[in-house]
Amino acid sequence: MYTGDRPVESAKITVFQYDETYFKERQLGSVEECKECKDSRGVVWINIDGIHDISVVETVAKIFGIHPLVQEDIVSIHQRPKVEEYDSYLFAILKMLYQEPKTRVLQAEQVSMIVTPKIVISFQEREGDVFAPLRERIRNGKGIVRQRGSDYLAYCIIDAIVDYYFLIMEDLEDRILPLEKQVIDDPDPHVLQSIHSLKYDLVFMRRSLWPLREMLVRLYREQLPLVQPDTQPFLRDVHDHTIQIIEILESFQEIVSGLMDVHLTSISNRMNSIMKVLTIIATIFIPLTFIAGVYGMNFQIMPELSWPWGYPAVLGVMALVFIGMLIFFKRKKWL
Amino acid sequence: MYTGDRPVESAKITVFQYDETYFKERQLGSVEECKECKDSRGVVWINIDGIHDISVVETVAKIFGIHPLVQEDIVSIHQRPKVEEYDSYLFAILKMLYQEPKTRVLQAEQVSMIVTPKIVISFQEREGDVFAPLRERIRNGKGIVRQRGSDYLAYCIIDAIVDYYFLIMEDLEDRILPLEKQVIDDPDPHVLQSIHSLKYDLVFMRRSLWPLREMLVRLYREQLPLVQPDTQPFLRDVHDHTIQIIEILESFQEIVSGLMDVHLTSISNRMNSIMKVLTIIATIFIPLTFIAGVYGMNFQIMPELSWPWGYPAVLGVMALVFIGMLIFFKRKKWL
Amino acid sequence: MYTGDRPVESAKITVFQYDETYFKERQLGSVEECKECKDSRGVVWINIDGIHDISVVETVAKIFGIHPLVQEDIVSIHQRPKVEEYDSYLFAILKMLYQEPKTRVLQAEQVSMIVTPKIVISFQEREGDVFAPLRERIRNGKGIVRQRGSDYLAYCIIDAIVDYYFLIMEDLEDRILPLEKQVIDDPDPHVLQSIHSLKYDLVFMRRSLWPLREMLVRLYREQLPLVQPDTQPFLRDVHDHTIQIIEILESFQEIVSGLMDVHLTSISNRMNSIMKVLTIIATIFIPLTFIAGVYGMNFQIMPELSWPWGYPAVLGVMALVFIGMLIFFKRKKWL
Amino acid sequence: MYTGDRPVESAKITVFQYDETYFKERQLGSVEECKECKDSRGVVWINIDGIHDISVVETVAKIFGIHPLVQEDIVSIHQRPKVEEYDSYLFAILKMLYQEPKTRVLQAEQVSMIVTPKIVISFQEREGDVFAPLRERIRNGKGIVRQRGSDYLAYCIIDAIVDYYFLIMEDLEDRILPLEKQVIDDPDPHVLQSIHSLKYDLVFMRRSLWPLREMLVRLYREQLPLVQPDTQPFLRDVHDHTIQIIEILESFQEIVSGLMDVHLTSISNRMNSIMKVLTIIATIFIPLTFIAGVYGMNFQIMPELSWPWGYPAVLGVMALVFIGMLIFFKRKKWL
Amino acid sequence: MYTGDRPVESAKITVFQYDETYFKERQLGSVEECKECKDSRGVVWINIDGIHDISVVETVAKIFGIHPLVQEDIVSIHQRPKVEEYDSYLFAILKMLYQEPKTRVLQAEQVSMIVTPKIVISFQEREGDVFAPLRERIRNGKGIVRQRGSDYLAYCIIDAIVDYYFLIMEDLEDRILPLEKQVIDDPDPHVLQSIHSLKYDLVFMRRSLWPLREMLVRLYREQLPLVQPDTQPFLRDVHDHTIQIIEILESFQEIVSGLMDVHLTSISNRMNSIMKVLTIIATIFIPLTFIAGVYGMNFQIMPELSWPWGYPAVLGVMALVFIGMLIFFKRKKWL
Repeated sequence: MYTGDRPVESAKITVFQYDETYFKERQLGSVEECKECKDSRGVVWINIDGIHDISVVETVAKIFGIHPLVQEDIVSIHQRPKVEEYDSYLFAILKMLYQEPKTRVLQAEQVSMIVTPKIVISFQEREGDVFAPLRERIRNGKGIVRQRGSDYLAYCIIDAIVDYYFLIMEDLEDRILPLEKQVIDDPDPHVLQSIHSLKYDLVFMRRSLWPLREMLVRLYREQLPLVQPDTQPFLRDVHDHTIQIIEILESFQEIVSGLMDVHLTSISNRMNSIMKVLTIIATIFIPLTFIAGVYGMNFQIMPELSWPWGYPAVLGVMALVFIGMLIFFKRKKWL
Repeated sequence: MYTGDRPVESAKITVFQYDETYFKERQLGSVEECKECKDSRGVVWINIDGIHDISVVETVAKIFGIHPLVQEDIVSIHQRPKVEEYDSYLFAILKMLYQEPKTRVLQAEQVSMIVTPKIVISFQEREGDVFAPLRERIRNGKGIVRQRGSDYLAYCIIDAIVDYYFLIMEDLEDRILPLEKQVIDDPDPHVLQSIHSLKYDLVFMRRSLWPLREMLVRLYREQLPLVQPDTQPFLRDVHDHTIQIIEILESFQEIVSGLMDVHLTSISNRMNSIMKVLTIIATIFIPLTFIAGVYGMNFQIMPELSWPWGYPAVLGVMALVFIGMLIFFKRKKWL
Repeated sequence: MYTGDRPVESAKITVFQYDETYFKERQLGSVEECKECKDSRGVVWINIDGIHDISVVETVAKIFGIHPLVQEDIVSIHQRPKVEEYDSYLFAILKMLYQEPKTRVLQAEQVSMIVTPKIVISFQEREGDVFAPLRERIRNGKGIVRQRGSDYLAYCIIDAIVDYYFLIMEDLEDRILPLEKQVIDDPDPHVLQSIHSLKYDLVFMRRSLWPLREMLVRLYREQLPLVQPDTQPFLRDVHDHTIQIIEILESFQEIVSGLMDVHLTSISNRMNSIMKVLTIIATIFIPLTFIAGVYGMNFQIMPELSWPWGYPAVLGVMALVFIGMLIFFKRKKWL
Repeated sequence: MYTGDRPVESAKITVFQYDETYFKERQLGSVEECKECKDSRGVVWINIDGIHDISVVETVAKIFGIHPLVQEDIVSIHQRPKVEEYDSYLFAILKMLYQEPKTRVLQAEQVSMIVTPKIVISFQEREGDVFAPLRERIRNGKGIVRQRGSDYLAYCIIDAIVDYYFLIMEDLEDRILPLEKQVIDDPDPHVLQSIHSLKYDLVFMRRSLWPLREMLVRLYREQLPLVQPDTQPFLRDVHDHTIQIIEILESFQEIVSGLMDVHLTSISNRMNSIMKVLTIIATIFIPLTFIAGVYGMNFQIMPELSWPWGYPAVLGVMALVFIGMLIFFKRKKWL
Repeated sequence: MYTGDRPVESAKITVFQYDETYFKERQLGSVEECKECKDSRGVVWINIDGIHDISVVETVAKIFGIHPLVQEDIVSIHQRPKVEEYDSYLFAILKMLYQEPKTRVLQAEQVSMIVTPKIVISFQEREGDVFAPLRERIRNGKGIVRQRGSDYLAYCIIDAIVDYYFLIMEDLEDRILPLEKQVIDDPDPHVLQSIHSLKYDLVFMRRSLWPLREMLVRLYREQLPLVQPDTQPFLRDVHDHTIQIIEILESFQEIVSGLMDVHLTSISNRMNSIMKVLTIIATIFIPLTFIAGVYGMNFQIMPELSWPWGYPAVLGVMALVFIGMLIFFKRKKWL
């Protein structure tokens, strides 16, 4: 059963056929036409956008002899990235991250891949532009992709996905840097929300990165028969990139978790300065008001009231209290 | 000694017998009837609900030659999930989580399983509906369960239990999401209790998930003679699911532990805004009250009191102090 | 050198001798009598309470040919639990936890054990009742202990000690549960002390549990010649119990460390509500008092004072300010 | 594609040629001249400052037969430290840390190294003085560098870089120590910024240290054919230094993360003392002011007002309240 | 280059020569006399206090054929504890902790050791008394040290150093215990400093303990030819002690990090009680003062002022407000 929403109208099947000298690109009208690709020349890349149409996946599976568990994994979109070796093909699941353009919410899309000695079949939830540069490279024969087999094509697909993570990381960095300043200068409650959502995204990323790394380790450590020796260094390279992303991610997590502390401390600092203002004003004027209150009492016999210097004397005492308080606060370094 | 409460009246014994073409379901009146199952056709699933009646377990153990330690483990319900290999059978303990329908409190129920080449005996504390879909599948011959042996049936039972965890996870997510909003917008003391109980449930879940994972690793890594090679990929699949649940759980734990920080910071933010109000009001009016107090004094000689413009002048001074304070707060960005 | 206090007057030596059909229990007057046990029938358990009398340990060591390092380990009571294999015997150190009955303070007592093919010698710091059920079982021939060798007896002793940890865990749970409620409802300073002492006890327990687990792993993984194959599953069982205790302990630690956060947050919540009361009262009455102060001034020319409706008008203004403030607080959700 | 800024005008190529008796140092005008070094006498060190000029790297790669992936790694400056073994050479990437002299901001510079049996080619982003002492040692024949092969030279380069980390650590310590005092004595908001930037730098350092350590482990554990046995102890030595730096770094991290707690606690302490002052003043004078207020009321019938001892009596009551409050605060230990 | 201060005037060289029956102790005037020890009878222990005099180390190295890297390690005092195996000797570096007697500051001193089949050479930064009991034991022939070879002597030296850690631990415990009480009862700012310095010392200790443990693991796991089989159990014993110290250290770290939380919570509790006092006083008297203020206004027409019962009525109202407030606070449990 397909477990995602239905993002595209109907599955779109694009086929790239190429070898060093030959290149053909076409879009299939129906899944059955895939059959022809089985025995065609060079490397074939069948890309299927839209996996909600289970019948498409089923037909492909029947044509290429895919295990039922694999079929199930392709259409249930909450799988962990993994690689599984079957008799005649490799099956890999990857997670592609992308940001919802409007809301900047991070989302994961599942990309599955079946790699046989000559054919790579990739399944995406929706049409994306992550593979556009790769397609361009195949079309124009740029790089060495046209000179290599299906395993190198599979590497290119994985590499395109992993490279996209770097873009996400840069975007995250762009969200972290302004927060760092804001958190110290301006302890605004909105900052809290930003930090929390950043933390959430980092947790989300890590959840898709760890299994990706595991999968790549398996791919380049185990000497899988489908992966040719001269493709190994490239897989190690993409694995290195994954580790680098994870390390950056972890340092981001540390920084963001530090930001929360800084924010809390910043609020406390702010509260401190508010309390100081309150305390200074209250501590100076409450005693003065009391003195004024005393001489506002209506007792018939209050000798001070009739003294000619009574009023100036009281004003003087008040001034002394005022100055004394100022000195006290100066000493406490509150002013 | 049975260590749980007594949830069902008397043990209920249900027997499923099936092979690809044959299916029989019946409920046994007494435990002794199990004996007949020993040599019956196809795969036999004996499900026993209610393990408080130790004599039932003892009788079953005697019939099938079960080790005393295993008997003990079946009836003491605080065992860790584990799998043990004996000469002629596998013994597995699992934990099934379910939510008390009324209180939404998470509880664990122990499910034990004895797997011989042709028979699976499962023990539950109480009748549950987790296995209902599996029973339906066996009855209708849907899926491949009827074509496989007892090891596949054991896998199906484990799979049913693990799948149920996903439901629990979704419920937990439903509890986390509203908390995230509430915690920032409305730092209510009740939130604290919700976060704490959520944390408690996550700790509880992890305690039953880690040994479950260990057990599944053992089950698919060690080439147990009772588990046929074509059942291995299914066990790896259910193991993958467990890892996925654990990863989701860990990200939940991080988010919930973040929620506590957010809550605390939110309270501090709130306190900050309360303090601001207090400070603004007090800082403006305390000096003004002091001025009023001074001219409320009853000294006989207070020249200002008899000045014709004394009263308006004092009001003017008060207005200046008021405006000065407002400007001060504006600059401090408190207004 | 003996490193503990001197808890019992003089060492008490109890000897159990048994096989399947025979049982003899007696108390030795002097250590030298141990010599007779060397060649006696069946399994012999020599239990020595009180290890402060080093001469006792030395004599026993001489009789049974114990390594000097082992002697030293027996009498210095701050050893880590461990198991060591010597040519003709196994040496094991365990930690038994018990609660000081009056103060409920957790304390650790060292139990050492020397296991030869036919003899088990156990050393305790003081007489305890942890082994009472085991002794009863040997006396009455209950269970299979009388049918097995010294390795099974050693297992029984370890099992008795590990089982006792479960009692301690239950007691800890009894201390945690009321704290959880108290911490949210009533942020009392005494709670702080309870949480801290609980944390302390958990740290203390973990310190004795981790090496115990290590020791049990060694005991059942390494195929020690003294441990018979049919005792292995029992050792695995007691090891499982230790892991279970550790897992419970870790979840306790997480909960208790969460309690501290809850407590702190709870105090902040409480402070918040105190601040609200203060702010509401001060913010309402300080401006009103100022108004009253203005009309308490004694200027000779204050036209309002002679207006007939002056007093009621001022009271009206005050009422308006009062109501305005209430509305303000209502909007801020402080009321 | 080169991924850094363009720090130097044009690549500067310095060549050192030496053996035990011979030494020649020169600066190349163009990259092509490197060709001559291929078959020259002794060990050759080609140092290239400025890798932004890709054509330089490409020419060098062509001359020495370097793999395209290596070329790419040299010019993209965000690589992880790593070592890779190729058929005829070793390729290593290192990170050199340095402090921007003015801003004291930590920055990482990538140093790549190609080691063949007789030639070491090093690539730096810009001219630096880290290798100055090494160059001096080669020039003067000090130490054993002139007596060893290219592997020892490579070790010297790595050692120079690792030694530079110690300088950075000392500088970090110089920033931590004053903070420790300041954080307790003077909870200034600027401290917050210092702690945060320190934390940031430590996270940054760890990110470049961990892969460096991994790389060095690989270098001395795997018996690479290019590394001669008598160079192994030196590599182990530099590896030990890296571990030492990591351990110091980790203890710094713990201390700095503790500083944040201390700072927060310090602010709370400070707030506490502010609150005490406010509370003492307010609690003493508010009741006194109330008493004064009562006798400032203008009721026609207030018998106390006409008592001859009324005024002194009220002053006395006020003094009593004052003294009572002082005793109260003394008991609470607020004074 | 020697990297420490110069703590002693000139190096002091003490030589112990012994076998089971023979003992000679003397102090060398010059380093060259060491040469004679090379072929002397029994085990020789050369102890050198004061390594700032590099020529001493160099001479010793020349006499005994020590590798230059080892020489360097001996005199640079910031090495990690480690053990290295050379062809004819073992080289070990240890860290000895001691407390500066006056300031109670923890400091580390480096002890290096070269162990050949018959000779142990130990280097210390300054004269210490850690080895005094060991020297006494050799002098008097107490224990088995005189009956064993140089490997046992090396063990004795390590054991003396590790035993000294226990003393440091006890001292740390003496600093922790009073803090625990103080932190709850009396949240004084000085406590903060004590906790922080304690934390610092624990971090410092861990930094020297972890490599020490690593080193001991290597020493007893790898079957080094210089270490005789009957010395192995002793090395395992000292390794056990190190683990025990680390475990105690870790529990200290947990407790101390808990202390900071307790301290912060304690301050918040204290602040809470201060706020309560302020709020109670302010909340009671501010409204009362307002009432008094109203009747202190000088309006000509204020009918209440001329009522005969006006004054008592107002006093009554004030009493009612007062009592009402008290009840309110009673309900809030603030009193």
